[in-house]
Amino acid sequence: MIAMKPKRIDSRANAGSSELALIAHIRRRASQTSRSGLRLGIGDDCALLAPRTGEELAVTTDLCIAGRHFRLDWHPAESVGHRALARGLSDLAAMGARPIAAFLSLGLPRELTVRSGRARPWVEGFLDGLLTLAEANKTPLAGGDLAESPLAFADIALVGAVPLGKALLRFGARPGDLLYVTGTLGGAAAGLARLTKLAGPPQIPPAPPPRIPKNLAELLAPHLYPQPRIARGRWLMHRRLATAALDLSDGLSTDLAHLCEESDVAAEVDSEALPIHPEATLKQALHGGEDYELLFTARPTVRIPRGIAGLPIARIGRIVTPRSGQPAVTLISSQGRRPLKPQGWEHFS
Amino acid sequence: MIAMKPKRIDSRANAGSSELALIAHIRRRASQTSRSGLRLGIGDDCALLAPRTGEELAVTTDLCIAGRHFRLDWHPAESVGHRALARGLSDLAAMGARPIAAFLSLGLPRELTVRSGRARPWVEGFLDGLLTLAEANKTPLAGGDLAESPLAFADIALVGAVPLGKALLRFGARPGDLLYVTGTLGGAAAGLARLTKLAGPPQIPPAPPPRIPKNLAELLAPHLYPQPRIARGRWLMHRRLATAALDLSDGLSTDLAHLCEESDVAAEVDSEALPIHPEATLKQALHGGEDYELLFTARPTVRIPRGIAGLPIARIGRIVTPRSGQPAVTLISSQGRRPLKPQGWEHFS
Repeated sequence: MIAMKPKRIDSRANAGSSELALIAHIRRRASQTSRSGLRLGIGDDCALLAPRTGEELAVTTDLCIAGRHFRLDWHPAESVGHRALARGLSDLAAMGARPIAAFLSLGLPRELTVRSGRARPWVEGFLDGLLTLAEANKTPLAGGDLAESPLAFADIALVGAVPLGKALLRFGARPGDLLYVTGTLGGAAAGLARLTKLAGPPQIPPAPPPRIPKNLAELLAPHLYPQPRIARGRWLMHRRLATAALDLSDGLSTDLAHLCEESDVAAEVDSEALPIHPEATLKQALHGGEDYELLFTARPTVRIPRGIAGLPIARIGRIVTPRSGQPAVTLISSQGRRPLKPQGWEHFS
Repeated sequence: MIAMKPKRIDSRANAGSSELALIAHIRRRASQTSRSGLRLGIGDDCALLAPRTGEELAVTTDLCIAGRHFRLDWHPAESVGHRALARGLSDLAAMGARPIAAFLSLGLPRELTVRSGRARPWVEGFLDGLLTLAEANKTPLAGGDLAESPLAFADIALVGAVPLGKALLRFGARPGDLLYVTGTLGGAAAGLARLTKLAGPPQIPPAPPPRIPKNLAELLAPHLYPQPRIARGRWLMHRRLATAALDLSDGLSTDLAHLCEESDVAAEVDSEALPIHPEATLKQALHGGEDYELLFTARPTVRIPRGIAGLPIARIGRIVTPRSGQPAVTLISSQGRRPLKPQGWEHFS
């Protein structure tokens, strides 16, 4: 690590005062987060993490690039920071892990790190969004790297801990298992559709992201501020209820196909049973990505509650024996059966 | 994590066959590396790592951006991959940690992932350099992310393990301690100076990096293929000989200033005792970065050998009491004493 050690970079010719102020800001904010499991944070060659006896570590990294995973003319800076961290936290949730530490590598054009008129620097909004979600999930920012870059991007590594051998995995679903999903589906895709309308066509130079009217804030929240399901993943892991699990990042049709492939099974989804977000269409619920809900399977003899920690759980189908030449996932509705082909999340480019 | 799960991305509209082939190539190469400590690698929502009982985890991330940390018209692809990993491995070495797993996030313009005429894709050379160093240091590639990007960059997270409470830290040096360095200094800066001469002035479009003549390969190696000192760091950690340690990434003058600041001490360096690389100048030895040697302090009563595992160790000075208004680091030579100000590593931009 380099740049989050202010003492290491203050002598560099290119370390401007705004960069130093930014690092000081990050250290100050990072030090306020609960630090269970983090023994040594920003400042040395490495961070030191101490899992509890009998735990193993879950590690995931996620890359967000401007123009591809977010757009500077669509997404408020707070949302970009939130979403960058939410992706990795959702990966931890899908394993049933508790977060221990996050590491942020940030490449930013200079204009995003300095004050523009009366507006505060973009990066401060980004950090607010990221650190607010980090604090809500007791995830200290333990290090990272920072560099000026012609392209804005963030790479986040997340480390979590899970009791040895108890992590929720993608394989393990068996024919006869029932299929469950937390929360509702399609809300993120519906929010994104509204956001693009608000933002209008691209402008040169790019316009700042649209102001979100108060009456739309709630409708856009599933897209702008998705909530990773850490507590529900840990609940499932501790009770050993799930035979397989993953998070819905690419959309139900795509992620369920992955689960089937990893477990070597097929699945049937009951269209009428889907917990479609009130603002979303069936298509958005089936194929819209970034809902970050948990999709899991359990033996039919296991009693799954109707909700975990206040979040509803819906039974949406079942695992069946795969047949060669047949689709991995079938959608069943009152109109009959049809193959559900993966049509997941696409980038913004 | 997304892109290193080929089953998750093959349904995306933008996942071309070259991207899939690349991920398959990475998975194949990654699976060949020794995997002690890695329980689950590329393929699920997270990788799972199991440190041994009584160990804690050391985590570091390092960002490399084209035009800033490397240049596509200077550095062979193999060197870019090697250097990207070497930075983080050197951070682990500086803590005395053994590597457990590496995570690679890679943003690449499309032209670097496809064949150009008879030359193989740039990214294959990058991976060769990275994975060869990973294999030499028993560091499995356990996951990561991959995305098309107008700018080439790599962010690498490294996880290592070290016995609880035994990590080498930057603070702990005390007045009276002696100052040591492994290997030689300035070789990387001397190599870089030769490389820039070979490459000549920038061209539009950028020229490919220069062919390295056989007789220069050895002289350029300290810059193109620096060797992180994992074994020496672990040797120092196990024997509890060092009171403080870090790796020389920014140059002796800069890194020693950090050690002094973290330990709240001052230091004197004996100019004549410096193990200057045979091709390097005194200035390159004092200020040239990226040698990735270990700088450490030890009590004067402790016997430090003249070498560890075949690598020489030089005693280059001592730790003294800091005085207000006095420089943190003083260089002593036959011509007298002079302040050694931090003049470390600068980016290529």
